[in-house]
Amino acid sequence: MVKRPKVIVIGAGFGGLYAARALANAPVDVTVLDRTNHHVFQPLLYQVATAMLAPTDIAAPVRWLLRKQRNTEVLVGDVTAISVDERRVRCADGLELDYDFLIVAAGARHSYFGHPEWEHDAPGLKSVEDAIELRRRWLTAFERAERAALEGDAAERDANLTFAIIGGGPTGVELAGMLPTIARMALPPDFRHIDTSRARIVLLEGGARLLPAFPEDLSEHARRDLEALGVEVRTSTLVTNLGRDFVEAAGERIEARTIFWAAGNAASPLGRMLGAPLDRSGRVQVRDDLSVDGHPEVFVVGDTAVLRSHGAPVPAVAPAAMQSGRAAARNVLHAMRGEGREPFRYWNKGDLATIGRYKAVGVLAGRHLTGVFAWWTWLLVHIMYLAGFRNRLSVLVEWGYAFFTYERGARLITARSTDPDASPPARPRR
Amino acid sequence: MVKRPKVIVIGAGFGGLYAARALANAPVDVTVLDRTNHHVFQPLLYQVATAMLAPTDIAAPVRWLLRKQRNTEVLVGDVTAISVDERRVRCADGLELDYDFLIVAAGARHSYFGHPEWEHDAPGLKSVEDAIELRRRWLTAFERAERAALEGDAAERDANLTFAIIGGGPTGVELAGMLPTIARMALPPDFRHIDTSRARIVLLEGGARLLPAFPEDLSEHARRDLEALGVEVRTSTLVTNLGRDFVEAAGERIEARTIFWAAGNAASPLGRMLGAPLDRSGRVQVRDDLSVDGHPEVFVVGDTAVLRSHGAPVPAVAPAAMQSGRAAARNVLHAMRGEGREPFRYWNKGDLATIGRYKAVGVLAGRHLTGVFAWWTWLLVHIMYLAGFRNRLSVLVEWGYAFFTYERGARLITARSTDPDASPPARPRR
Repeated sequence: MVKRPKVIVIGAGFGGLYAARALANAPVDVTVLDRTNHHVFQPLLYQVATAMLAPTDIAAPVRWLLRKQRNTEVLVGDVTAISVDERRVRCADGLELDYDFLIVAAGARHSYFGHPEWEHDAPGLKSVEDAIELRRRWLTAFERAERAALEGDAAERDANLTFAIIGGGPTGVELAGMLPTIARMALPPDFRHIDTSRARIVLLEGGARLLPAFPEDLSEHARRDLEALGVEVRTSTLVTNLGRDFVEAAGERIEARTIFWAAGNAASPLGRMLGAPLDRSGRVQVRDDLSVDGHPEVFVVGDTAVLRSHGAPVPAVAPAAMQSGRAAARNVLHAMRGEGREPFRYWNKGDLATIGRYKAVGVLAGRHLTGVFAWWTWLLVHIMYLAGFRNRLSVLVEWGYAFFTYERGARLITARSTDPDASPPARPRR
Repeated sequence: MVKRPKVIVIGAGFGGLYAARALANAPVDVTVLDRTNHHVFQPLLYQVATAMLAPTDIAAPVRWLLRKQRNTEVLVGDVTAISVDERRVRCADGLELDYDFLIVAAGARHSYFGHPEWEHDAPGLKSVEDAIELRRRWLTAFERAERAALEGDAAERDANLTFAIIGGGPTGVELAGMLPTIARMALPPDFRHIDTSRARIVLLEGGARLLPAFPEDLSEHARRDLEALGVEVRTSTLVTNLGRDFVEAAGERIEARTIFWAAGNAASPLGRMLGAPLDRSGRVQVRDDLSVDGHPEVFVVGDTAVLRSHGAPVPAVAPAAMQSGRAAARNVLHAMRGEGREPFRYWNKGDLATIGRYKAVGVLAGRHLTGVFAWWTWLLVHIMYLAGFRNRLSVLVEWGYAFFTYERGARLITARSTDPDASPPARPRR
C-alpha cells in the first residue's frame, strides 16, 4: 500500500473548511486543526452581537460539518509553531503532527494600529465569544443608563446611551445600522426611566467614505440610509485616543460608555512562521498558486494571505477565503499528480452590506443594488450559504419572527466577564 | 395623592416572576431585582447542557417579560444585605432601596454536603452559565478522548468516555438519560478514533431509589428505562470523595473525567438575613401566609422557603415556586386592604421527568404515566409553560428537527473557561 500524503489544514473558517471539503474524495489524509470546535458563519456574527440570532444559529461543530468525509479528521488544537523545514506543526499542548502539504487558513484578528491597549475598551467582532461580549456590553449599557436615570445622574445616563463604532467597513456599517432599530423599536417598552430611542450612535471612519471596497455611489447611499436611521456618520475622522468611556477623534471628545472596534485587520501570527515575506498587516506574500516561496508544499489562503487575482488585490471577504481555500486544495492535487499548478483566480460574485432593518447596498453581477431589493438579495444569498440545514431553518424562524414583531429574542447577558466595569456602577443610596 | 406602597421582589425565577405578575394591576410600585437580566425556564436547562436547545431558547430578559406591566420596574442588582428593621435592601454596587413589602424569591444553589471544594470538579446546573459550562465539559471530554485514542492512550480515552452524574433526582435522571442518546445517535459519525457509543454513564444516588419525590413504581420504571439506555444506575451509593478525574463511592473508584453534580440544594444565603429560623439546608421557616415571624411585610417563596401545605412539606419544584410567589403577592394585597391573610395551599398538578429520547415517568392528576405517552404529556406541559411566544416556537423547531434527525444543533464549546484542565492534555509528539 502506498503511503497517502498527509495534508494539514490550520483553521476551520471559510478558507480552511472549503479547502478540506475540496479534498473530500482525494487519496490524502486530511487533518483540520482549529482552536475552537466550531466553524462560524462570520458574515452574520453582527446579528449575534445585536441579539437577533443565537450563537448556535450561525456556528456548527467542525467535525459535524466534515463528518461524512472519511479521509478527514478534526482536532481541537492551538497551533503555536510551524517548522517548514521539518514539515511539522506543533500545538500549545505539545501535540506535534507531520505533514506533506500544509494549508494555513488561520484568518485575522483586529489591528489597533499600534494601540493594543484599546482592545479592552473597544472590542472587535471576529468570534462567537466576541459577539457574546459585544451583546453583553450594549445590553449592560442600557441597564446602566436605566440605573443612572433612576438615580438622577443625567451625564452618566447619556454616556451609557452613546455608542461609538470605529470603522466604516461592512462590519461597522452593519452594527451601526442595527443599533438604532433596536433602541427605537425593541427596547422602549422595557424601560421605565430612560427613553431608549434617544440613544446616540456615532460611526467613525478614518477614510473619506464608508464601505471603501464598494463603488462610491453605494458608499453615499449607505451614508444616507444610516443618517435616516439617526446614526451620526463621521468620515475622514481618525480616532486619536479612547478609554473606558470616551473616544477622541478630530479634536472632539465623545462621551461613550460603549465602543466597538471594526477598523482594521492584522493577519494571524502563524503567517510569520513560514519564513515568507509579509505585508504591513502581517499577511503572507504568496505565489500565484498560493504557495510560499521555496516551499511549494505550503499554502496560505484567506485573510492570512495577500491574495491577488490577475495582478489585482482581492478583498478580505468570505468568498475570497472560500475560493482561495479551494484553489490551494486543487494545487495540492495537481502537485500529487505531477501536474502544473493553477494560479488563483478570484471570481467576484458581488458584495452586500445590510443597513438596519430591510435595507442594504451592494453590487451583484456588476449591478448596483440598494434599498429593500438589495436586502432581499442579501437575505437569499446568506440563507443559501449558511452551513448546515438546521441553522438555516432556525435563522429563518428568528428572522421571520423579528420581521413581524420587531422583538429581539436573544437579549441575554451571559458571558462571565473579567471586566470589573461590567456591572452597573456603584452609587450612593437613593 | 396617596403614596403607593413599594414592593421589592428579589429574584426573577419562577417565584419572583409570578409574584410580580400577580401584582400587575395592583396600586403598588413593584421593583424586581435580579443578579442577571434574564428569567430562566429551569426545567429545560438540562436541554441546554446537553446541546439540544440554545440558551436563548429557554431564557428571556426579565424586563421584556414584564414590559407591559407599567407599575413594575426591573433592575439588575446583586442583593448583599437586607435590613428588615429599616425595611431596606442593599446591592453589591451600593444601590439601596426601601420597601413596604418584600418578597424574597432568591432560589437555591447546590449543596456539596460540607465539601465545597468538590464544586470545581463536579459543577451543578442552576443557571444558563452552568448549562454552558456542562455543555463545554462533556463536549471537551469527547475531544480529549479522540486525542487520547489518536495517541494510543487507552486509559485516558476511557476516563474521558466515562461520565458520572451524582444525584438521582429529576435533574440527574434527565441528564443521565440524554447522554447515551447523544453518544450513540448524534456523535458516532463525527469521530475517527473513538467509538462514542461506548461512552459509560454512571448515575449515583445516595438514597434507596431514583426520583425520591415520585411514587415507588415510577422510580423503578425510571431505573429500568435508564438501564435499557445503557446507564449504570447505582442507588444507596454515597459519594465519599471526588476529584479532577475520579469519583469514589461505596468503596469503588470510578475513573471519570466528567462529573456532574445534581445532588442537593442549599437555599440562597439571603434567607439568613431575615432573622427567621432556618432549616438544615438554609431555607427560611415561614408562617402559613409565607411571611416571616415578626415581619408580616416580609415574605419568602420558592426554594428559599420551607413550604408547607395543609401541614405537609411541598417539594422544591417550579409549580411550587410559581404558586407560592402568587400567594405572597395576594397576601400583600390582603394586607393593604386590611383583610385577613390566606394560608399557602399547594396544588400538586403532577410531576414529570423525561428519560432519554421520548420516554418519561410522571404523575398527573393522580395517574401514573410512563413511556412515550408520559413524554408527550411532558412536551405539551413544557411548551405551554415556556415563557414568551418566541422561545416556544424556536423550541418546537429544535425539537422537531432533533426528532427527525437525532442531530444536536447546539454543540458549541464557547465559554471562556478559567479551568486550566479544559483543553486537551499535553502529550508527547506522535
